Amino acid sequence: MSNPPTDRTTIVIFGASGDLTKRKLAPALFHLYTSGVLPEYCRFIGVARSEFSDDEFHEHLRDGVTIDSGQEDEWNRFAQKIEYYRGHSNDPESLRGLDEHIRDGQGRNGHDNRIYYLALAPSLYEDTLAALGETGQLDESTGYRRVVIEKPFGTGLQSARALNDVVHSVLDENQVYRIDHYLGKDTVQNLLVFRFANTIFEPIWNRHYVDHVQISVLEKLDIEGRGDYYDHTGVIRDMFQSHLLQLLALVAMEPPAKAGSEALRDEKAKALVSVRRHTPETAANESVRGQYIGYRDEKNVAKDSETATFGATRMFVDNWRWQGVPFFLRSGKALGRKATEIVIQFRPPPHSIFQIPEGTSLTPNALHVSIQPEEGVHLTVENKTPGARMSVRSQELEFHFAPHEIRDAYERLLLDAIQGDASLFTRSDEIELSWEIVDPFIKAWEGSAASPLIPYHPESWGPDEADALLGPDRHWMVHRRSS
Amino acid sequence: MSNPPTDRTTIVIFGASGDLTKRKLAPALFHLYTSGVLPEYCRFIGVARSEFSDDEFHEHLRDGVTIDSGQEDEWNRFAQKIEYYRGHSNDPESLRGLDEHIRDGQGRNGHDNRIYYLALAPSLYEDTLAALGETGQLDESTGYRRVVIEKPFGTGLQSARALNDVVHSVLDENQVYRIDHYLGKDTVQNLLVFRFANTIFEPIWNRHYVDHVQISVLEKLDIEGRGDYYDHTGVIRDMFQSHLLQLLALVAMEPPAKAGSEALRDEKAKALVSVRRHTPETAANESVRGQYIGYRDEKNVAKDSETATFGATRMFVDNWRWQGVPFFLRSGKALGRKATEIVIQFRPPPHSIFQIPEGTSLTPNALHVSIQPEEGVHLTVENKTPGARMSVRSQELEFHFAPHEIRDAYERLLLDAIQGDASLFTRSDEIELSWEIVDPFIKAWEGSAASPLIPYHPESWGPDEADALLGPDRHWMVHRRSS
Repeated sequence: MSNPPTDRTTIVIFGASGDLTKRKLAPALFHLYTSGVLPEYCRFIGVARSEFSDDEFHEHLRDGVTIDSGQEDEWNRFAQKIEYYRGHSNDPESLRGLDEHIRDGQGRNGHDNRIYYLALAPSLYEDTLAALGETGQLDESTGYRRVVIEKPFGTGLQSARALNDVVHSVLDENQVYRIDHYLGKDTVQNLLVFRFANTIFEPIWNRHYVDHVQISVLEKLDIEGRGDYYDHTGVIRDMFQSHLLQLLALVAMEPPAKAGSEALRDEKAKALVSVRRHTPETAANESVRGQYIGYRDEKNVAKDSETATFGATRMFVDNWRWQGVPFFLRSGKALGRKATEIVIQFRPPPHSIFQIPEGTSLTPNALHVSIQPEEGVHLTVENKTPGARMSVRSQELEFHFAPHEIRDAYERLLLDAIQGDASLFTRSDEIELSWEIVDPFIKAWEGSAASPLIPYHPESWGPDEADALLGPDRHWMVHRRSS
Repeated sequence: MSNPPTDRTTIVIFGASGDLTKRKLAPALFHLYTSGVLPEYCRFIGVARSEFSDDEFHEHLRDGVTIDSGQEDEWNRFAQKIEYYRGHSNDPESLRGLDEHIRDGQGRNGHDNRIYYLALAPSLYEDTLAALGETGQLDESTGYRRVVIEKPFGTGLQSARALNDVVHSVLDENQVYRIDHYLGKDTVQNLLVFRFANTIFEPIWNRHYVDHVQISVLEKLDIEGRGDYYDHTGVIRDMFQSHLLQLLALVAMEPPAKAGSEALRDEKAKALVSVRRHTPETAANESVRGQYIGYRDEKNVAKDSETATFGATRMFVDNWRWQGVPFFLRSGKALGRKATEIVIQFRPPPHSIFQIPEGTSLTPNALHVSIQPEEGVHLTVENKTPGARMSVRSQELEFHFAPHEIRDAYERLLLDAIQGDASLFTRSDEIELSWEIVDPFIKAWEGSAASPLIPYHPESWGPDEADALLGPDRHWMVHRRSS
């Protein structure tokens, strides 16, 4: 018997000199390597315009990786698998050379599997994809070819569609892995488990029992000097189109028909289809936008910038399950706390047999799914106040993920891409549906239908007007443990 | 303006030289006194046959009370309110003297409120009640007259009915406070709050979502030398008729129509009405009885005793809510653990979209209500295993009552009797319904329909046959924290 053909897997990272590669991808790949879950013959090629020798590139990456004592040898073995290739991702000539380089480095037997990771400025996506297609590197006859695309995917519905057109001109949808790293978080995936591996939540997960849903992505950080990017993006493109609507879809979706990425993404897309559409005029009424005081003094921000750094919206999912239940979404920068959290606020008991003090009422149940920085689940329930007569107080049934158990989102998503599981990546229809939902808000906020841009103090909770959006007897919640 | 008439409250304890008075009633009354919740003019009179001076009686009680440093003065002030009266509770002559004694000790203005606490051997109940009636001490023209009756209330349906007849010949039902001290526990009352002050449990609290219910009262203690009592009682009379069926009623009942003791007891009684009745023959099939090895060597136990020290039964509540859902009840002495716990075992998810290892299945949700020694609530839910791919593990959402917050059950119940709230006391119909339910089991176990009496080892979980009663894929559960 001759030697069997040997499969090889090459992971090419375009934009390899950038921050994402150093801070996220290299640590994730190193940890996957030390965990022994990578394919046997694995090669990593960083591509960028900078001048690096392989050794210099290793040193550069090493800065971003935490190497425990005793891991030196492992790092060195891992680094031997990393090569640097100087080139332009959007230049077919460069890419032809890269293709040669990849072929030269390995035997001609077995599968030549490749993942191209676009850790690039989004303006380079289209040309890079076209160049990969033109140089024949997306053809799967000798092995799989997958492309991982970082967010943002487009800047609006029109540009997202145009980008999808380019994507589909060179790739099948099943070769595409659009990353929203939030979906790689254990706490986000736990939403699926929590809903569909338990019997007790699904019966009450609907308009009969849920008063409203809150989804918050709050940041303490300001724009960190990235005015160049942020002033043309703003909170609605940066957060709502991707993270917030993906979380909404996971909360609102019906149970998937079966396991697997297509059934899951079918349901998320269906939920997004049901989200009520707005005109820019109605979108202005259903939202609040704010800008933190001091934003206009940030580097590369226009002195008269109208860009929102805080947004809150009310959305409805018009289907049998959710009709009439508001979904409140908010996100902002330079706030008093960092917290990503989903709150399912249940209705109050229809009738109380307990004698509670006049002017007070029973606290309705709420389920808090804390995604970051705290990672856990809290269920607020009413219990008897011990000792006293039949009086009632709120307490929490809770559990937390142990921090050491949590795996970094990029690690999970890279492994999924290598293993060909696209469940946690965003499909083209989801992308376009999300833009379809947020486009009227963008138009409202940037156009003549604009609701006022409300200044707010850094380290606050954002504009007070965001509370009014909830209506009477409701208030924004963040679990007390989040910090 | 003249001085207003002054209300006085006298608490008479019959059987005052006994263990219950020393270990439970005196500490409870002292704590109520130091908490400042007793009526202003309160008097305690212990009645028994022993010779005690007032001072000797105070010393006797003091042994059972924990007096913190700095509480000496309070104890002394409290003791001044305690008198001892030597007499026979079942002798009208004695009781006439007691009545005089009470009247002599106070002015003739204001209400002369009295509570008679029967901390007596049950064989004395009927004569004592008759004597109280005969001597006019249950007449409420000068103040309320309430009688607290300790369990056991009868030894079967017939004797319970006879006792109720005597009770009702001298008292209105609303003057009667039949104690089951389990109902005074915060964790038991929390069942009501948990069910009816929260919206999220009631929708799933029925046959559609609940697979079965378990109620366990497990004791580590053996009969502690009380063979005289126990050998004629056994576990079914001692535990099932009262504690276990009361817990069952609280789990199974419908929401009460309104606040207050009558509405609550109406619903408990309705639940007991719906419990499926047995003949002795069918009762034998629906139960397992056991006796711990060594029981027949206990003092005052017959050498060939057939008394069960362990019992397990399957019951059904035949109504719309619970049709087809088994309620498994068990209790025993000399077991490996002390634990009183209710488990609501929910059905498994109807369909799994998760890839779980072959031969395994998702763990169905379970709600554990721990009553003693642990006091808290645990909700078992499936969550994502962090780090791993979409695999699932069971975790617990939980909370616990802080031990220092918990008030002793007798304290709560004594205060309720003083304040005239009978919610947590058992009404005559509940008593008779409970005996109606357990009588066929008693007949089965003591008669010709007897299922075998299975010996079990002390410190075990009781007979293995109790597991078989649950049927396939079910097992008895006790929360791991209980000890």
